[in-house]
Amino acid sequence: MTSTSRLLIVSTSTIHGSGYLEYILPEVANFFHGRENLIFIPYARPGGISHDGYTELAQKAFASVGLSIRGLHTFDDPAQAIREAGGFFTGGGNTFVLLKTLYERELIPALQAAVGAGTPYMGTSAGANLTGLTVNTTNDMPIVHPPSLDALAFVPFNINPHYLDPIEGSTHMGETRETRIKEFHHFNTQPVLGLREGSWLRLENNQLELKGPHTARLFNAGKTPEELQPGPVNQLLSNA
Amino acid sequence: MTSTSRLLIVSTSTIHGSGYLEYILPEVANFFHGRENLIFIPYARPGGISHDGYTELAQKAFASVGLSIRGLHTFDDPAQAIREAGGFFTGGGNTFVLLKTLYERELIPALQAAVGAGTPYMGTSAGANLTGLTVNTTNDMPIVHPPSLDALAFVPFNINPHYLDPIEGSTHMGETRETRIKEFHHFNTQPVLGLREGSWLRLENNQLELKGPHTARLFNAGKTPEELQPGPVNQLLSNA
Repeated sequence: MTSTSRLLIVSTSTIHGSGYLEYILPEVANFFHGRENLIFIPYARPGGISHDGYTELAQKAFASVGLSIRGLHTFDDPAQAIREAGGFFTGGGNTFVLLKTLYERELIPALQAAVGAGTPYMGTSAGANLTGLTVNTTNDMPIVHPPSLDALAFVPFNINPHYLDPIEGSTHMGETRETRIKEFHHFNTQPVLGLREGSWLRLENNQLELKGPHTARLFNAGKTPEELQPGPVNQLLSNA
Repeated sequence: MTSTSRLLIVSTSTIHGSGYLEYILPEVANFFHGRENLIFIPYARPGGISHDGYTELAQKAFASVGLSIRGLHTFDDPAQAIREAGGFFTGGGNTFVLLKTLYERELIPALQAAVGAGTPYMGTSAGANLTGLTVNTTNDMPIVHPPSLDALAFVPFNINPHYLDPIEGSTHMGETRETRIKEFHHFNTQPVLGLREGSWLRLENNQLELKGPHTARLFNAGKTPEELQPGPVNQLLSNA
């Protein structure tokens, strides 16, 4: 993270009963206002959709607010495309597939340089996971094995998107999300922010804001989790 | 898998409203009947519990059916202990922590040799995942990064323990279990068996049986999933 970084870290692309990105389109339009050469990173491939098919989905949503965006997979030299891009949107899907593809294509340094220099980055779900220090707090199934779980480290903490509160009265014996994050803290020290569906973070001018209708749950190693209210959450940047 | 392999592959250690292993103790007693020098593998450390604390839990349950068991972590030479063991029980917890520990301590070849030679192996949850070809179909959070996701390959397919059917009327936008397994099959070819809580597999004399009150859901790449009835399921061995 640098003082010029601009980020939109979004828990989910879609909220129940609404179209793809629909609930957050006004924020997207505002965030990318005046930006050209936007690039869509389709590598997370939700449900195994093709890169082309996934890019079309993003293009339709962006077009509805007057933005055009092109799939990163369509460039002959994706690293060069990243250097020249006016903004990035990384869609959700499988975090392991996304990260492994970025490592294989050696695109992580280019993305870090561009975002560090102020090119705005938006990520939903798996694309939000990527902005944290590591993807060790993803909810996804490890269907492929990336060489590392280190992520883009745009922010000095980890993200848990689609954060779910324990379901009252559940008889299922699998771990709750909170239990999983506490297990993470037996082996790692960085804070983890549980972002509920409908919530997002926006970083600009060194100011980090929690937006959307929900509180977010902050897990610090060895401490009781706390609920952060929507509004400024600059304390999350203090690890930087 | 060899013709002498004996396995108990259990979806969950605990079913709702009952004590640790309680529902499956008669099967455990029968499976390990007459066996001494049983070894408990505590490395999955559910909730970050200590190896000693976790071993005590297993010891209490085993003692209630007249079996004694010792933690693998208490041996000076765990590989030697594995070679001399009369049986293994690997408890649940975090699959990544479990597998990473086994790789770090270089215990996988010893376990494979012993189980291949007929030493009975029981695993619950993460310990069940371990019996498959890989742990790419675990439900756990990747809180640590093992060098590989290749598992013990005692059976020629993958396990998905704690298998959950889609929750009717859910508004959560995270992927269902079935969606995740279908994504797995975009990148991998082996069958995946979804074992519901309360179900287990028992392998003996080259016969594989699905036990417990539920059907199990079999996912073959590119095919419609099917429900397997309790009883012989030897078709799952045909990949071997």
